[in-house]
Amino acid sequence: MVKNKFIAKLEAIQQKNNSLVCIGLDPDIKKIPQFLLKHKDPIFSFNKAIIDATYDLVCTYKPNIAFYEAEGEKGLKSLKKTVIYLKKKHLHTPIILDAKRADIGNTNQAYIKAFFKELKVDALTLHPYLGQKALEPFLDLKDKFFFILCRTSNPGAGEFQDLKVRNMPFYLYLAKQVAHKWNKNHNCGLVVGATYPGELKKVRKLIGGMTLLIPGIGKQGGNVKKTIKAGQNSKGLGMVINSSRGIIYAGSGKDFAKSARKTADDLRQEINKYR
Amino acid sequence: MVKNKFIAKLEAIQQKNNSLVCIGLDPDIKKIPQFLLKHKDPIFSFNKAIIDATYDLVCTYKPNIAFYEAEGEKGLKSLKKTVIYLKKKHLHTPIILDAKRADIGNTNQAYIKAFFKELKVDALTLHPYLGQKALEPFLDLKDKFFFILCRTSNPGAGEFQDLKVRNMPFYLYLAKQVAHKWNKNHNCGLVVGATYPGELKKVRKLIGGMTLLIPGIGKQGGNVKKTIKAGQNSKGLGMVINSSRGIIYAGSGKDFAKSARKTADDLRQEINKYR
Repeated sequence: MVKNKFIAKLEAIQQKNNSLVCIGLDPDIKKIPQFLLKHKDPIFSFNKAIIDATYDLVCTYKPNIAFYEAEGEKGLKSLKKTVIYLKKKHLHTPIILDAKRADIGNTNQAYIKAFFKELKVDALTLHPYLGQKALEPFLDLKDKFFFILCRTSNPGAGEFQDLKVRNMPFYLYLAKQVAHKWNKNHNCGLVVGATYPGELKKVRKLIGGMTLLIPGIGKQGGNVKKTIKAGQNSKGLGMVINSSRGIIYAGSGKDFAKSARKTADDLRQEINKYR
Repeated sequence: MVKNKFIAKLEAIQQKNNSLVCIGLDPDIKKIPQFLLKHKDPIFSFNKAIIDATYDLVCTYKPNIAFYEAEGEKGLKSLKKTVIYLKKKHLHTPIILDAKRADIGNTNQAYIKAFFKELKVDALTLHPYLGQKALEPFLDLKDKFFFILCRTSNPGAGEFQDLKVRNMPFYLYLAKQVAHKWNKNHNCGLVVGATYPGELKKVRKLIGGMTLLIPGIGKQGGNVKKTIKAGQNSKGLGMVINSSRGIIYAGSGKDFAKSARKTADDLRQEINKYR
């Protein structure tokens, strides 16, 4: 089996940095250290400082596009600069764009142009609701990777995700569909929140070694030990553990990047303790 | 009951222009008339020509953000110019941004800034998968309006949407939840594809007079007569019928806007025949 390009990159850097940590680059202009506002592109300056301070402690970065769109075209420019910077300085670190998209086939082609030709990220998060057929333009891209929302980390996630369908909760049925039908090109993963370790365990049992993107550690309250025990595959891998606010806003002074580094390293070590 | 601001605007213009037609402003740089490529901002020039030729025949415009993101920051600028142009010249025509978003609460705040503060559109399309609780930052905005994806127009939409939950298909359960629980502020509508008139009829029966955004007419093959018969509320209203490619690419020469006008008017009249 040929290994997906993103997964190959991810596993190489997970091994090199001995880390499953993903940092969510979700800069909020109101929350970043205020002295950065004097910079020409405060958001890029913020991201660059976080990256420079943490690149040897993480396995991937995950910008959530919402925080860039909030600043209009200027924000999109900061995102592009961040991706270009990562590609230039840390080519071996893959980038997951958290954009949670999904539309009909024709429109998905436009998103493909936006994210893989304009921005050139390695992986993308997707909403499942339209089904496999609509998402085929994405799933046909063998070199890219797609994390499908399965059990999200938010309160109230169960409203639809826990509904019983064909004798199992919907999120599990979805996990099964993705693992056994959508994943023909070995380029699918799932998003399962750390805030639901019981559900995480059930998903892992169903999907074999597949890679999970796990948000919800840190500010959202997910427990590291429970998450690792429930989410790891038989090799102690198959996970990307994201923390955004907990790491990037660990400090707010001139030395914010140093604080982010310490918090990222603490998380890295705590995760490794349970693998 | 205070009427939602978007709905009040929509119904006024539906009456004034005697039209339920929504034009999807989905410009593809490869498909727009090639002479426009000499313009400084070809996408804006294209949209402006379409708007100038059709504003008295439609009740709303619906740009799908994917087609703008495909052109990077430049595309986002064209979108912003289009929205500003509409607000300036046709303030009474509401704008639906088709962005199909949904994230956890904290992140949705960033989307709110992007779409209602930076862009200032009137309504937004949303993915339902995360549930009401996650979408509350949107649903709390009483002046804005949200079309939740219910039964999408794409082939294969039934993969999840038709799954049986609590003795009904999922899309109907969702319609019920939105109509009876999410819609406290009277600012929710649903997206139901014209390509599924049987399902459209069932949704209408369940939700009362609520407004539906109906894509799938035109290139996607939805039948106008069946759609209107199935989708209208008791007043012959409660619908926004979208056509994108069928109208905006009706012509490809210098007179493309004239062709778009004719096609939009034909659709308007065909719809009205069945109301």
